Amino acid sequence: MEAQEDSSNRIHRRVTVLAAGSWGTALAMVLAENGFQVMLWTRSEEHAAAMNKQRKNEKYLQDVMLPNNITATSSLEEAIAASELVLFVSPSAAMRQVAQAASPYIKDEMLIVHATKGFEADTLKPMSIVLAEELQRPVENIVVLSGPSHAEEVVRRLPTTVVVAAGELVCAERAQDAFINTAFRVYTNQDVAGVEIAGALKNIIALGAGLSDGLQYGDNARAALMTRGLAEIVRLGVQMGANPLTFAGLAGVGDLIVTCTSKHSRNWRAGYKLAQGESLSDVLHTMGMVVEGVKTTRATYQLAEKYQVEMPITTQLYEVLFNGKQPKLAVEALMGRIRTNEIEQF
Amino acid sequence: MEAQEDSSNRIHRRVTVLAAGSWGTALAMVLAENGFQVMLWTRSEEHAAAMNKQRKNEKYLQDVMLPNNITATSSLEEAIAASELVLFVSPSAAMRQVAQAASPYIKDEMLIVHATKGFEADTLKPMSIVLAEELQRPVENIVVLSGPSHAEEVVRRLPTTVVVAAGELVCAERAQDAFINTAFRVYTNQDVAGVEIAGALKNIIALGAGLSDGLQYGDNARAALMTRGLAEIVRLGVQMGANPLTFAGLAGVGDLIVTCTSKHSRNWRAGYKLAQGESLSDVLHTMGMVVEGVKTTRATYQLAEKYQVEMPITTQLYEVLFNGKQPKLAVEALMGRIRTNEIEQF
Repeated sequence: MEAQEDSSNRIHRRVTVLAAGSWGTALAMVLAENGFQVMLWTRSEEHAAAMNKQRKNEKYLQDVMLPNNITATSSLEEAIAASELVLFVSPSAAMRQVAQAASPYIKDEMLIVHATKGFEADTLKPMSIVLAEELQRPVENIVVLSGPSHAEEVVRRLPTTVVVAAGELVCAERAQDAFINTAFRVYTNQDVAGVEIAGALKNIIALGAGLSDGLQYGDNARAALMTRGLAEIVRLGVQMGANPLTFAGLAGVGDLIVTCTSKHSRNWRAGYKLAQGESLSDVLHTMGMVVEGVKTTRATYQLAEKYQVEMPITTQLYEVLFNGKQPKLAVEALMGRIRTNEIEQF
Repeated sequence: MEAQEDSSNRIHRRVTVLAAGSWGTALAMVLAENGFQVMLWTRSEEHAAAMNKQRKNEKYLQDVMLPNNITATSSLEEAIAASELVLFVSPSAAMRQVAQAASPYIKDEMLIVHATKGFEADTLKPMSIVLAEELQRPVENIVVLSGPSHAEEVVRRLPTTVVVAAGELVCAERAQDAFINTAFRVYTNQDVAGVEIAGALKNIIALGAGLSDGLQYGDNARAALMTRGLAEIVRLGVQMGANPLTFAGLAGVGDLIVTCTSKHSRNWRAGYKLAQGESLSDVLHTMGMVVEGVKTTRATYQLAEKYQVEMPITTQLYEVLFNGKQPKLAVEALMGRIRTNEIEQF
């Protein structure tokens, strides 16, 4: 039996999306299509006013008309009042501050979902922990949504599959009910740690794939790097309490594939530019966007030390990003490793 | 410690490659680079003479010069005599016949390796079993070589990683010693069943990826298809005695990535053409090449029935290939499946 209910029942049910970047706006459109009254928050009053007037998010998703059941606002109070589901999609660096500001308006019965990839920089905490701390609720009730999902394809209603994970399965199922439709397929999972680690760390591998492609190393090398990269992510994930099977799923290998093989990926492009000899500061400056993989490489390098896990690809990327190692020497170091038994590496 | 020895010791050591397609020729070049005297067999006397005269394999790898320590021959006896390693790379449909013909010349001490993806059509047997039967030796001594490896990139010495698997680890290690060099990295594994199943079945998923891409369904859909495809391959593999970890490795997800994301893949191209409305017979006719995935879809459909494993992607592809189902309806059937818990699917 399909769980989706008749969307006409939902027009007076309100949900909230914080904030109006490209992914937040795309997920707001999924919820709007499913019949909810969607409150889309953005920090900027002008941005909110412009979206309401133009029925467009000019800044992040130019070509898409926002349906009438999306209302933009710069007031967190207005955005959250009477909502049954609050979706956090802020960049990882802003998550704690947004959660803090939203906290006074959030009621216990509201379902909390996040769709942000990355760890908090100083504490190395995943977003579910940051939210649980700031909203003072059990982490088991917080849902993470992740998977292979370019925003640009989701708004075009191209077939997309994602995972929603929560320690309490019933919370994941509530999120599944809200998001699922014929174009946007939603699977549940209870392994929040695995989904969050996979989502954050694939950005490192995407940087590495861009580096390899920028050096013209070919499809064989990129596939090897992705496979060995996945293996080291699993090693760390298992030490951090994740279920290894999660990494074989949509939030793991699925998202890794989309991120590493699409030239639209910011992380891939950053790696590609580094391989051409651009400096990290130039790359970050000219891209003018958040490149989550750069911060995640530093955080993961520290996690690998903390959990005593061998992560050769992360280590070489760390050397390239932060110690000026030549990309070519880094990739050669990875390829020239001593021979080993494949399975023992897991 | 690197296992590779000084290649100057190898110039009087002979190895054999059957036969001289693009992948066989590429692997012959790896062995030649490693110092062996390589005998490269082809069925056609003219083809052998042309390769020896032109120092090229015009038919399959035009742009590459064959080194002097590769000798082509159309005599199996000459090819195999005094060899220490015999590599079989015939198409799966020809493997039993080639092994039968080679059998009289093969001695117990020769290491047997194969690098062919697919099952025997009628018996559904993997190549290691076919070779063990025809060469009358224990299947544990037969090595399979597999992984993400376009021949065109291997001959250009672009970084490539593969797996060699054998029930007897010492046999896999002998193959590793023979093939490994700085550009061609070789990992060992003891899970022959897993490596063979992964290598054969990824061609089905590549067909499906081509179908999805031909329908313009986008990167999200292709990644989902690859991920869910991998999941159903693992389900069958485990029932057939494979180690699930093998599918997360180079011969599994690594090869899947290379095959599904490269427009050079025959299987991907066949799927793409089917999506444009070409009939299967037209596709096979105009491509004029073996499309292993078509035969493998039929074989896997039968294996799924035999082992009672749910394989929705294989089933839909079977319907498209052999029962005239419209590709669009097949992909819609896959996307519209009832919601489920992701992990339970494994």
